[in-house]
Amino acid sequence: MSKKITIAIDAMGGENSPDKILNGINIFLKKNINTDDFFLNLFGDKDILEKKLKDLNISSKSLRIINTKSVVSDDETPLTAIKNSKDTSMWNCIKSQIDGTSDISLSAGNTGVLLVISRMILKMMPKVSKPALAGLWPNQKGLNVVLDLGANIECNENNLVDFAELGSALYKSLYPDNKPYVSLLNIGSEEIKGTETLKKTFKKLKSLSNENNFIFNGYIEGTNIMSGESNVIVTDGFTGNIALKTAEGTAKFITDNLKKTLTESIFSKISIIFSYFSLKKFKDKLDPRKYNGAIFLGLNGPVVKSHGSTDALGFYYSIDLCYKIVKGNLIKQITNNLNHLNNDN
Amino acid sequence: MSKKITIAIDAMGGENSPDKILNGINIFLKKNINTDDFFLNLFGDKDILEKKLKDLNISSKSLRIINTKSVVSDDETPLTAIKNSKDTSMWNCIKSQIDGTSDISLSAGNTGVLLVISRMILKMMPKVSKPALAGLWPNQKGLNVVLDLGANIECNENNLVDFAELGSALYKSLYPDNKPYVSLLNIGSEEIKGTETLKKTFKKLKSLSNENNFIFNGYIEGTNIMSGESNVIVTDGFTGNIALKTAEGTAKFITDNLKKTLTESIFSKISIIFSYFSLKKFKDKLDPRKYNGAIFLGLNGPVVKSHGSTDALGFYYSIDLCYKIVKGNLIKQITNNLNHLNNDN
Repeated sequence: MSKKITIAIDAMGGENSPDKILNGINIFLKKNINTDDFFLNLFGDKDILEKKLKDLNISSKSLRIINTKSVVSDDETPLTAIKNSKDTSMWNCIKSQIDGTSDISLSAGNTGVLLVISRMILKMMPKVSKPALAGLWPNQKGLNVVLDLGANIECNENNLVDFAELGSALYKSLYPDNKPYVSLLNIGSEEIKGTETLKKTFKKLKSLSNENNFIFNGYIEGTNIMSGESNVIVTDGFTGNIALKTAEGTAKFITDNLKKTLTESIFSKISIIFSYFSLKKFKDKLDPRKYNGAIFLGLNGPVVKSHGSTDALGFYYSIDLCYKIVKGNLIKQITNNLNHLNNDN
Repeated sequence: MSKKITIAIDAMGGENSPDKILNGINIFLKKNINTDDFFLNLFGDKDILEKKLKDLNISSKSLRIINTKSVVSDDETPLTAIKNSKDTSMWNCIKSQIDGTSDISLSAGNTGVLLVISRMILKMMPKVSKPALAGLWPNQKGLNVVLDLGANIECNENNLVDFAELGSALYKSLYPDNKPYVSLLNIGSEEIKGTETLKKTFKKLKSLSNENNFIFNGYIEGTNIMSGESNVIVTDGFTGNIALKTAEGTAKFITDNLKKTLTESIFSKISIIFSYFSLKKFKDKLDPRKYNGAIFLGLNGPVVKSHGSTDALGFYYSIDLCYKIVKGNLIKQITNNLNHLNNDN
């Protein structure tokens, strides 16, 4: 039997935990009932977790509980957390990667603390200048990787080039049959547009572009992030965070208005009956829970951050993401890409 | 009789011009058939324009044509345009503001050239550090002013404070009965978040906040640009351009998918019949043509840039915007706000 994919889960972080965590695990186990190539390490209060697992009738065949005494609170700042968090579910979850008992960590807890202690415990990969937070966005053809989403407010050209290598490694681990097409987010598509840092990054990415690592598609504007012309979008953490949240806000504005529209009159209510299945498909495609999970890249081990406010289904999708990332050999893909960078740069 | 609101229109700029320009003027004249407090100065080829006005049966009561020999092409760069554009419809359109024959200029032509020659001809207002391009976004309660949308890639705290004063003056000129609530776009709402420039701007805006000029609402995240909690959103031109275009791209992605959904089966097609009027209202609210027109602020005269690719209805909305801006005394509002800045800063 080959080595199992082992996922460390912080069972206590985020809203409505551990309930949503265990319900999410339940969905994952049911969907993977015929596979046994994975194992889950659950970090949290053993008494609570054991009782809830029993209530949900979850067998302990594919998981075990590692008892931890406390939880990182949402108010904790990254600075104080370094001192205070050694007994927490989050800390021990990530530490299990160093101990060799887990391949990847997943938490829905405090983002700032997770980034700081992940970096502290796992440490940066030797050739990476800055780690980055990557997210998944739907596009017209499937899915984009977008990074950085907020780990680094200010970035130079070397950081952005690293992000291109990290993001395309992630894309390859998730979609082994597709090629990563990298674009650099800018305010125009012409070479003369943008900041000096972007112009320098453009030149470097152009010279690094090749069939094995990534194909550089040039600049991309905000209008085309979701067009599907590229599947890895590179930007600094400030811009990426603004773009992500603006897209979320716009989607909410439109769907709120659509909902209001479709329920305001008796005729439009009748229309819902006729379009029920189509609208359900539409809603499913845009369901943010399907894209739940930001991936912290560039450390000696991958860490996935689930939205704190997601529900059981959203948490299930982030477990599934962890499974795919390890199965797709993310760390090996990153190492290969960074070697390429080192040789050519 | 009091002085009329005089709008200078570049009749030759943008796709499908002068046809869409004249059709847009036609809509404006029909909607304002009972008012005679405005006059339109049309700049372009007199022979072509006269013939088309006759074809459309537009009377010359509220407009006149000023003959110009050439047109700024879309390929022209701002640098060469300074030399080449003195005979163009765009140049003469803006110049009429200096000559005192127009109160505001409107063009659907080359954006880069428009910004450069507007600045050259009209010159910056004495107390403004950088002029800014402002746009209108729909929100849950009505409308936002967002600036800068791309005139200035890099901005310091004084530029951003100026944008707050300029944007709230614009908001007051469009909505004389409402108070402007200013927010600063950032990646978090806590005071400690963001770049050093944003932190310095935050402090300055907080100290300038008052009932007469604008009320400072603190930081805002991308998710809330369209929530309606603020109506003036301040950011640098790089971030603003990325946010605007990402919102446009997201809206397109969602509405394209919705369209596909509602036409994919016979049942969903029937549903459209029942929800026709509601969906039309939904579509109307999101119609980008209603928000057509970016306003170049901070010069000794306002200039409005229409989307080059809009149609007659979109161009009508930008004429209407010009009319409201002059009626709301934008330049006086800006002067008042800048005096406040000067006294308190």
